[in-house]
Amino acid sequence: MRKIGVKEIEDIALGAALLGAGGGGDPYVGKLIACNAIAECGEVSLLSVDEVPDDAFIVPIAMMGAPTVLAEKAIGNGEYRRLHDMVSRFFGREIYAFMPMEAGGVNSMLPFAAAARLGLPIVDADGMGRAFPELQMVTFTMAGVSATPMALTDEKGNTAIFQTITNKWTEDLARAVTMSCGGSVSISLYCMDGKIVKQYGVRDIVTRSERLGRAIRTVKQGAGAPEDNFFAATEGFKMFRGKIVDVLRETRGAFNFGKVILEGIGEYKGHVAHAEFQNENLLAAVDGTILATTPDLICIVDSETFTPVPTDALKYGKRVLMLGLKCFETWRSPAGLELVGPRYFGVDTDYIPVEERVKGGALA
Amino acid sequence: MRKIGVKEIEDIALGAALLGAGGGGDPYVGKLIACNAIAECGEVSLLSVDEVPDDAFIVPIAMMGAPTVLAEKAIGNGEYRRLHDMVSRFFGREIYAFMPMEAGGVNSMLPFAAAARLGLPIVDADGMGRAFPELQMVTFTMAGVSATPMALTDEKGNTAIFQTITNKWTEDLARAVTMSCGGSVSISLYCMDGKIVKQYGVRDIVTRSERLGRAIRTVKQGAGAPEDNFFAATEGFKMFRGKIVDVLRETRGAFNFGKVILEGIGEYKGHVAHAEFQNENLLAAVDGTILATTPDLICIVDSETFTPVPTDALKYGKRVLMLGLKCFETWRSPAGLELVGPRYFGVDTDYIPVEERVKGGALA
Repeated sequence: MRKIGVKEIEDIALGAALLGAGGGGDPYVGKLIACNAIAECGEVSLLSVDEVPDDAFIVPIAMMGAPTVLAEKAIGNGEYRRLHDMVSRFFGREIYAFMPMEAGGVNSMLPFAAAARLGLPIVDADGMGRAFPELQMVTFTMAGVSATPMALTDEKGNTAIFQTITNKWTEDLARAVTMSCGGSVSISLYCMDGKIVKQYGVRDIVTRSERLGRAIRTVKQGAGAPEDNFFAATEGFKMFRGKIVDVLRETRGAFNFGKVILEGIGEYKGHVAHAEFQNENLLAAVDGTILATTPDLICIVDSETFTPVPTDALKYGKRVLMLGLKCFETWRSPAGLELVGPRYFGVDTDYIPVEERVKGGALA
Repeated sequence: MRKIGVKEIEDIALGAALLGAGGGGDPYVGKLIACNAIAECGEVSLLSVDEVPDDAFIVPIAMMGAPTVLAEKAIGNGEYRRLHDMVSRFFGREIYAFMPMEAGGVNSMLPFAAAARLGLPIVDADGMGRAFPELQMVTFTMAGVSATPMALTDEKGNTAIFQTITNKWTEDLARAVTMSCGGSVSISLYCMDGKIVKQYGVRDIVTRSERLGRAIRTVKQGAGAPEDNFFAATEGFKMFRGKIVDVLRETRGAFNFGKVILEGIGEYKGHVAHAEFQNENLLAAVDGTILATTPDLICIVDSETFTPVPTDALKYGKRVLMLGLKCFETWRSPAGLELVGPRYFGVDTDYIPVEERVKGGALA
């Protein structure tokens, strides 16, 4: 157990932006919400998974909907208190700790706001190890854990509790209500015993975020070249350095689809790369050769500051580095690839781990 | 208390078609569902409102969505058992009786199916005294009764429990889920104490439906002319007799909008009438003079058999009678007219009771 204060939150948010793989929503607004709650109510205790009793009742906290809506539709104290009361009453159990379900993007931050306000600890685990666009895309789905009973509330006080026959149905019904509530709501789902977190959760992901964030923040303080420090700290696979020369965007069915095209600079001069995204980056290729696909993380960062650039901030002329990060091991299983592999997203290619693709890649 | 069997159901369904005022869905499929449940599980006890204890827990049963979907998506035993268990568990109360919330159209029948299957009685009251298109349009909304906690289930086993800040929000959120579930679901809402039913419910509406249905069925058996028997039994205001010469239809936002035009026959020869509808008939006019508006009931029946003709069965050449029925008294209050008056439906005219409009009407 250790305490998470405003300083730690800063680093976790920066790391969560990288784990967002271009999506998950900019953690900036979430960071303000979390810091505000901590300033008001005190620091949050972060529990490692092994500190959680097997029979402890662990309740994930997240927002569902368009993260950009958060900038206009604030989250207050009421939502988390309401979720807490709904869940404990419906299950008839006392909540032992909150947990993030999606460590990448804005959902890395909101559990800290809830934990500060309700005086509960947070478990250092999640169900993705990154960001994904749909709520059934968690390790717990592979383990047969139901997303429901799921609690949902908007900022006005409307609530719903869902119980569904599959986690895809949870996604469909909750998404419909989210849209009716104005595009963003607060949710608790995959409420589970500590034992299940231990078996199927992505362990230490908050700590990993914090380490990644700190590495980015201090990248110029190390002994070596900033870029070497960055790749050493992130264990990332360098795929390209380039200037953004085109961004194509399309909004379809509540998702942001698009493609970014990079013209090589430095050692990549004369080459061309592109990435395709659906909220998160799905595929990266150099000179037409695929170097990474989902579920591995494809991250685009500013080539000077190494700050992650989310897909909605991609713009002409920006100089960036494109890198790949290994996803959580379980995503590479057949069940994992069925949930979040390239074909689920309509990308017609087999999954090959990023480390293998990069080895045989275009400029290898 | 009296028993409702298959014979009574036939008459209630026919009367409910008249109270549907053109909408509410053809009770035919609902009748099959109710008769099937009664044949399998036995007759249903109908309680008059005064037989219900003040503190008895009364649970309405209805379907939400497009009634036509029922013909393809059957309702089985599971839905009502599920609603029963969800509601009694969530409230922590034993259900004393079911109740219809909408006596017009298909929702007149489904509570009988639920009551037969669960072995519970039905209270002889509803919240509309007719059919209306949205779920906040009940007398109980005027009394400040919340539609929620509301339980919803589809035939597959997906469920939701809503708690909302207004009954309009219930409508919006539940409608979104209904659409995601394929267009029709089973619901329990406005769960309440017997005392509230006594204060605000539309009393004896099931018995009135049955009486209306029997009158239509036996209209040619009376001493007088069938038409005189019909108007005597229904207390209807005759507005027009004519041949349908045009029907305009438009589907907008899950509602059926439209207009039917009648060319006078018999005593109305040389005159023209029309009715406008949004699921239910909203306005009736003869030679441009309005003779009735919502919330009074505007009914169109076959001029030979007096069988009600729902708006979706209106077609060229059919000979019909158009009549008005007084709505439940409370709908005529300012609060009632705000919920279901002509202006709510975009009909730009003041509400004047049908009996006054007809007196000063076009052919009076």
